[in-house]
Amino acid sequence: MKAAQRLLEMAAREGVRACFANPGTSEMHLVAALDAAPSIRPVLCLFEGVATGAADGYGRMTQTPALTLLHLGPGLGNGFANLHNAYRARTPIVSLVGEHATYHRANNPPLASDIAAIARPVSAWLETAETARDLLHAGRRAIAAARRAGPATLILPADVAWSDDEPEPAAPTPDEEHQGIAGVESAVQALGPRTLLLLGGRQLSAEACAIAQRIAAATGALALIETFPARVRREGGGAELKRLPYLSEMAAATLAQVETVILAGAAYPVAFFALPGRPLRLAPKGAQVIELTPAGVNPEMALLALADQLKAPALRSHRPSPPPKPNSDGAIDPMSLAQCIAATLPDNAIVCDESNTAGLFCYDASASSPSHDWLTLTGGSIGQGLPLATGAAIACPDRRVLALEADGSALYTIQALWTQAREQLNVTNVILNNGAYAILRLEMMRAGVNTLSDAANSLFDLRNPAIDFCAIAQGFGVPAQRVATPQALAAALERSYAAAGPSLIEVMLP
Amino acid sequence: MKAAQRLLEMAAREGVRACFANPGTSEMHLVAALDAAPSIRPVLCLFEGVATGAADGYGRMTQTPALTLLHLGPGLGNGFANLHNAYRARTPIVSLVGEHATYHRANNPPLASDIAAIARPVSAWLETAETARDLLHAGRRAIAAARRAGPATLILPADVAWSDDEPEPAAPTPDEEHQGIAGVESAVQALGPRTLLLLGGRQLSAEACAIAQRIAAATGALALIETFPARVRREGGGAELKRLPYLSEMAAATLAQVETVILAGAAYPVAFFALPGRPLRLAPKGAQVIELTPAGVNPEMALLALADQLKAPALRSHRPSPPPKPNSDGAIDPMSLAQCIAATLPDNAIVCDESNTAGLFCYDASASSPSHDWLTLTGGSIGQGLPLATGAAIACPDRRVLALEADGSALYTIQALWTQAREQLNVTNVILNNGAYAILRLEMMRAGVNTLSDAANSLFDLRNPAIDFCAIAQGFGVPAQRVATPQALAAALERSYAAAGPSLIEVMLP
Repeated sequence: MKAAQRLLEMAAREGVRACFANPGTSEMHLVAALDAAPSIRPVLCLFEGVATGAADGYGRMTQTPALTLLHLGPGLGNGFANLHNAYRARTPIVSLVGEHATYHRANNPPLASDIAAIARPVSAWLETAETARDLLHAGRRAIAAARRAGPATLILPADVAWSDDEPEPAAPTPDEEHQGIAGVESAVQALGPRTLLLLGGRQLSAEACAIAQRIAAATGALALIETFPARVRREGGGAELKRLPYLSEMAAATLAQVETVILAGAAYPVAFFALPGRPLRLAPKGAQVIELTPAGVNPEMALLALADQLKAPALRSHRPSPPPKPNSDGAIDPMSLAQCIAATLPDNAIVCDESNTAGLFCYDASASSPSHDWLTLTGGSIGQGLPLATGAAIACPDRRVLALEADGSALYTIQALWTQAREQLNVTNVILNNGAYAILRLEMMRAGVNTLSDAANSLFDLRNPAIDFCAIAQGFGVPAQRVATPQALAAALERSYAAAGPSLIEVMLP
Repeated sequence: MKAAQRLLEMAAREGVRACFANPGTSEMHLVAALDAAPSIRPVLCLFEGVATGAADGYGRMTQTPALTLLHLGPGLGNGFANLHNAYRARTPIVSLVGEHATYHRANNPPLASDIAAIARPVSAWLETAETARDLLHAGRRAIAAARRAGPATLILPADVAWSDDEPEPAAPTPDEEHQGIAGVESAVQALGPRTLLLLGGRQLSAEACAIAQRIAAATGALALIETFPARVRREGGGAELKRLPYLSEMAAATLAQVETVILAGAAYPVAFFALPGRPLRLAPKGAQVIELTPAGVNPEMALLALADQLKAPALRSHRPSPPPKPNSDGAIDPMSLAQCIAATLPDNAIVCDESNTAGLFCYDASASSPSHDWLTLTGGSIGQGLPLATGAAIACPDRRVLALEADGSALYTIQALWTQAREQLNVTNVILNNGAYAILRLEMMRAGVNTLSDAANSLFDLRNPAIDFCAIAQGFGVPAQRVATPQALAAALERSYAAAGPSLIEVMLP
């Protein structure tokens, strides 16, 4: 039996159920071996950035690693941006990157490059399998590391994959699972009206959010979720928890009175970008910092211990009903967009949010919608939304996935639509077409450049020519329609949710 | 004056005329400074892989570096694959990669990663500008290195870009230009019927090809061009020179009688991939190797010296006329495709060839077409053709560019069509739609897997659903039509060549 086959059979035994693939010649033996592991679903993507983004969406929803199959350094390069987002989300993923045969590397053939160098910045774990004897163990280490810490990269030379060598006997994989609940005592002492309780983690459960609400109510503390959480379950009263604003000046204003920062699975809040004269570290200088749980660790248990010690009373459930559907036939603005989304969101939906400027109000507006999960752009690397939705839909075939997608960002990985059509995934893709990289206009002002130069006006514009997302979607096999009023948008959303398979709604913004 | 502005003004003085940009917040000051350097044309690309591929096409045609503007590590990652091709082609390019402000890096904001690590495998030169005082000199070093050796990467922290600090006085840039003509004596001794003269270099001139033909005729040597040359000028008798075959077994058979390999700007020929039982180093074991000019150096002068010493007589020019247009209304096959291309190619065209399996015969068939340049996939990283054509058309606005593009490869960077529409570039995009990653079917057989598994059949297929390239092109603003017969293809090519601006022809292959 070939080593590639042993590897995939082992992965199947370990619970791996999906492989997002864009293979090439160096991955042929892995492709050939897939038939021997029928419980792993191969999903073809037209571009590696779709494969890695889909693996991210899949991993966030299942907390189990999917495989990606990537073709040497350039294939990994194409997948880098969405692995960066996954690395920041600490999503379990095992990337199998094909490499030239060990004995051919010294010949420096055209596709050779330093794969490990590219992989290191986005890998919580990284190894090259130099022998078939060790491959199975390396694969086990990769899966364990992915579950524990996030994206793992296993570089697999072709001759190792096709080798018939027997593997070495298995050594048990050390279990390094940890769940920090340190810092509870200090947090109890510190909690009060000038305390920030900042929530993060690989996935933020509805319970964790509800407990944070209880703690905030009992102590007067400010409970917030980090700006770009990997995944938040919104269900019950905890759904109303707000996220720390993206704009550093707004975030700093929100935190102006804070004297103590309690980090519950979140990193210390910093500006997304430094800009002249803008704040960098977002809590006031001198604020005390207490780590309740390390960044990336789910804080539910620690929050529960904290609430118990505080004897924080349960809150009365007073879930408001979702807002009414807007019935306007005027133009769509960020507020009416948010109302449409919130008023129509189906029960147990998964929202993949890369809506950038246009979708600013969607999150808060949906607090009163039926229960759902919300996934965000954790690493700031755009081109994530459509792949993320694709992977989430593979993970959760019985749930509706809503991709809220800015036009400029959609165009990085628009090929994801084809995989949605091919696999008939229940994804509603909402493209917010304002014909611009609108966020860059905003950022340029924030950078202190108050008049847009000719070059800037040109480089931030997507209207010359206008991009027809409906035509592109149809080219990839996804039915599409264009809407320009809140009324039409709400109706289009409801039609899309009611029909199986993917669809695209192009929302024309003024 | 800001450092970013000084940098761009210097680049303009040094002859830089184009900037392929996909900017983000960390590049705002570079964008703002572009107005101060009006001789640099900003060209917006919807994806970084388009920007880097376009810079490659531009640099191959002008031998002058264009700039790319890329957004931190993920933006560079998106551009990596086509920088890999450019690195292998040694194309002059200066990539300006924005980075977080120097004083913000330690805060590890969401978009932070090790940019230099990603850049190193595709950079002939790499620096991070740590101070505005040195930025101008670093920029000069980057431009000089790009001209000399290939892609240069300058990582530019945002606060360095926006600094008002005066630069240090200029130091002269050392001129390291070299043109090797060593090895002429040994080559003269070795040339004979069992000698391979293998041509390569950054650009292979018509003269170099013609001289190689003369040498081959005088000595009985086998003159070939490397498998994937960066650029070949085909004009006169030298246009008939063949390229070393891609398939390693065919290449090895071609070279079976060779006892001496003379490398004239080419690297020693090796297999693209190692496969079980297939040859790796393509000349027979024990063959003597003589380096006439180092890999990547244009061999024209050394070939001329060689021909002079050999007193190789001039060849009679006997340029055959191009083949007649095929007039069949049957299906299009690789041979009739090649005839259509060869019969209609306009004078002085630029062919960007990423046609993979379907376009196998196009190069040889076009030997008798009017003079043209032929650019190939130097690094094997697919998704190059449409961006390459885009950049070549910016470089040479008065020439027709023909992109010969495989369907699977086209889908990696299909967004290039939009830049072609926006800039109204004279590009004819021919998409060869066989509904498959056909090359992978071939490679799997070559890898010794003779029956395609279910997973392989599925992962190599692009017909479920069929991709409508005409719809996608129209979505990006490029007029398109579909053809299925040689007759219709020839007519469509002629119509496209006669009309200004871009168009797309979707060629349906059985």
